[in-house]
Amino acid sequence: MIFELNRDSHVPLYAQIVGRVREMITSGALKVGDRLPASRDLAKTLGVNRNTVAYAYEELEADAIVSSQVGRGTYISGVPGTPSRSAPRAKREISAYPWEADFAHLRSDPWLGGMLRFKHLAGNTVSFAYSLPQADLLPIEKFRAAIDRAARREGRRLIEMGDSLGYAPLREYLATQMALCGIKASPDEILITNGCQQAISLLQGALIQPGDGVAIENPTYSGALSVFCRGGQKFIPIPVDDNGINLNLVEEAFSRHAPKLLYTIPTFQNPTGITTSLSSRHQLLDLSIKYRVPIIEDDIYSELRYDGPAVPSLKALDEHGIVIQISSFSKIGFPGLRVGWIVGARELIQQLALLKQKLDLHTATLTQAAIYEFSRHGLLARHMKRARKTYRDRRDAMVAALERHFPEEASWNHPEGGMALWVRLPEGFDTDQLLVQAYEKGVLFSPASHFYAGAARRNLLRLSFTITPPDAIETGIRTLGALVKREIAGLRRRPLQQAAEGFKALV
Amino acid sequence: MIFELNRDSHVPLYAQIVGRVREMITSGALKVGDRLPASRDLAKTLGVNRNTVAYAYEELEADAIVSSQVGRGTYISGVPGTPSRSAPRAKREISAYPWEADFAHLRSDPWLGGMLRFKHLAGNTVSFAYSLPQADLLPIEKFRAAIDRAARREGRRLIEMGDSLGYAPLREYLATQMALCGIKASPDEILITNGCQQAISLLQGALIQPGDGVAIENPTYSGALSVFCRGGQKFIPIPVDDNGINLNLVEEAFSRHAPKLLYTIPTFQNPTGITTSLSSRHQLLDLSIKYRVPIIEDDIYSELRYDGPAVPSLKALDEHGIVIQISSFSKIGFPGLRVGWIVGARELIQQLALLKQKLDLHTATLTQAAIYEFSRHGLLARHMKRARKTYRDRRDAMVAALERHFPEEASWNHPEGGMALWVRLPEGFDTDQLLVQAYEKGVLFSPASHFYAGAARRNLLRLSFTITPPDAIETGIRTLGALVKREIAGLRRRPLQQAAEGFKALV
Repeated sequence: MIFELNRDSHVPLYAQIVGRVREMITSGALKVGDRLPASRDLAKTLGVNRNTVAYAYEELEADAIVSSQVGRGTYISGVPGTPSRSAPRAKREISAYPWEADFAHLRSDPWLGGMLRFKHLAGNTVSFAYSLPQADLLPIEKFRAAIDRAARREGRRLIEMGDSLGYAPLREYLATQMALCGIKASPDEILITNGCQQAISLLQGALIQPGDGVAIENPTYSGALSVFCRGGQKFIPIPVDDNGINLNLVEEAFSRHAPKLLYTIPTFQNPTGITTSLSSRHQLLDLSIKYRVPIIEDDIYSELRYDGPAVPSLKALDEHGIVIQISSFSKIGFPGLRVGWIVGARELIQQLALLKQKLDLHTATLTQAAIYEFSRHGLLARHMKRARKTYRDRRDAMVAALERHFPEEASWNHPEGGMALWVRLPEGFDTDQLLVQAYEKGVLFSPASHFYAGAARRNLLRLSFTITPPDAIETGIRTLGALVKREIAGLRRRPLQQAAEGFKALV
Repeated sequence: MIFELNRDSHVPLYAQIVGRVREMITSGALKVGDRLPASRDLAKTLGVNRNTVAYAYEELEADAIVSSQVGRGTYISGVPGTPSRSAPRAKREISAYPWEADFAHLRSDPWLGGMLRFKHLAGNTVSFAYSLPQADLLPIEKFRAAIDRAARREGRRLIEMGDSLGYAPLREYLATQMALCGIKASPDEILITNGCQQAISLLQGALIQPGDGVAIENPTYSGALSVFCRGGQKFIPIPVDDNGINLNLVEEAFSRHAPKLLYTIPTFQNPTGITTSLSSRHQLLDLSIKYRVPIIEDDIYSELRYDGPAVPSLKALDEHGIVIQISSFSKIGFPGLRVGWIVGARELIQQLALLKQKLDLHTATLTQAAIYEFSRHGLLARHMKRARKTYRDRRDAMVAALERHFPEEASWNHPEGGMALWVRLPEGFDTDQLLVQAYEKGVLFSPASHFYAGAARRNLLRLSFTITPPDAIETGIRTLGALVKREIAGLRRRPLQQAAEGFKALV
């Protein structure tokens, strides 16, 4: 029995041996009753450890292909079910199934893939593209210890099927945190999700039927656009101005289009950083009640406030149970754990829990228990204090760098919290094209086109500051500022052309 | 400043203090500039620990509502944003938003909620209702150690945003395991999902457009019915007979209805336990190629084989890349971790990864890393050997008990693996009604109605044996057998009526 093993393959040697023996039986080179070489001999022939062969034989035995008897050796005892017509088939032309046609409809969603777009970055790239927490602010050893405490306490419950609503101690903890923010919610009015993104998908699935209208801030979070604006429903974009969502246009949208719901990020809106004022919140709620349009309040950034007094959330002001608030642990420390939540009226949460079963039964107990264990001892609160201080310093460093390096034609806001600034360049400027140039210089940001439902205003861009240290912020903004100045000089001479094509070529 | 705390509330005392101070500011009882009592004094008044008050003041300070200066005490420094018109509002009639109308369309899905139906069971209930692994077979201390090793090795990568395709070492491990089963797949042809249920949801989302047809075995897994048959698409049910899916009716369905895909569980089919033979698998693949209908092969039970040689999966026989195989770690040990996968053509997997981003970005890295760590050292393989032996004994115990206690009019199969038997009672028998009676006697099972698209054959039932020890199997089957005998005696006298109503009343 002679064959070669491929030592460069990702398939382990023992698995290759199993595969070769199976092939030899299928091809007739080995038959039932034939004796396999002793593992010691085959190991020698192949130049592998004897245990490798022994393990391969065990695998074959587990599949009832060989059997071994003490003193007699190892025999072929069964035929692996293999393609009985493999020989003639191999000669036929095998055509691969053309999958592309099956998901042509997905191509109409430019957001899909955006997250992965710049995945392979050079080490010295300065990225202002992602609104993510700085991972090394979190005391990872303490978090590891929290995972271990959770695992010890929960034992088998970690691996058993869990509750679709989510891990009960975490829901109780969240109810307490909400009480601190003026939201009265019991643990059974909270559903744990795999992050805010799943909260959005679930609500879309539960509340939106084909043909329903969805009112959505414009610009807004691209992951929400992907769910709410590219699934066959009608979307009603509502502009965001310097005071937040435009209330006149909300009323017009509600009265003319009767949308099924409104999606809004009232605090540190993504991408603009704008916070809707308290009086506007009251007016928005009044409109919601008057026209019976439920509000999804995406509250994911509200804990990241660096200056000024907190404004109560829409959910805290809601007396009718018409607001559904969603949030997650992703921005405050744990994007990779995928734990978020929905808080809303009990009957809504019960229905969403059923739909959650349909999607994936429940969120993993291990991740929920680990976050709960970390949070209940105040470690999360302490981490957030530290993170807020770091992020505030970075926001200030970015504003200072913009003042130093950006031309006077540019303007930007100075949000009291969140993860990004919103920069306005002169009309006619194309931030998609700027990104192509910036990428070549090792700087990334998010152009306005990522955030608009429908046609984008191209002269805007988002600069995220949370994962970039102040010295890199200075370097990156200086580079970007030089490009912006050059482009503005060019703009005075000629209109920009073909910007979108340039970007597509890069992607 | 006098108020009462509620010591029975789930809201901690410090949070209650925060809430009361906020309320007193809102109501005008406290004003900006007012001094709060020293924490020592307030603690005494309220009868709480001084730290409780200090912590409450810290919270208020973090929200910029109070400020404290050394030597001067703690002052009200800001007004919490509260409903500015709360007084007049409180007098108005507050009507709750009527959520029920918004999800009326979900009520048409009887599966939703089925998982939770019998959640609160008496301790002495014998349940044959769930096809789940026996949690205490898994060496939980070793799994805990694996979690800890994974956490130490991955460190911050556990909390950082991960790859939408899934944790790379786990995909490499799975590719190796697949090679052992004759499936050639590289790690980038594998997408990690939150269990098999999400795999089904993702495929539905990626491949099915409104109006598309889906061919599906009938009966089948109720979670697949929920996704494929209750979302507005057309479903084409194909009967399962004693040899598996009926191939004549597959060809008829493919040629007449041109479905977008076929969903099948060829090995230890749920609920019937039937395994499609090798020659039928070849024929099914030929039909799939001929009519260009991709196959979703749900392979979730195939590792749980107790007798007989393994039959190669459809994916192992697939030369055209037309088969999409889905599976998970849920049946072999970890339902609560929610880790499953999809293996298929590279271009399909890339598109599914994008759609996965839309649903929830990615599966938690912690759960994937923990399973990988447990599996790579052979602990999972060892566990499965033990589990297979236990489940085989339980299957045999159940067959023996059925032979002892069920009447001769009943018949059942003897599957070579999986988690359940399929029992046939005489025509006219109603297993929904039997469940009502069995529940009263402390025995549960899954009636046929849970598994049928369209009208169910009511004289069938599924008995899962994996989580019930042999002595409880004996007790439960004896109880069930007595009920069946009594009903059959009654059947000879009169037709059964109103069975469904009886069941609904129970739910």
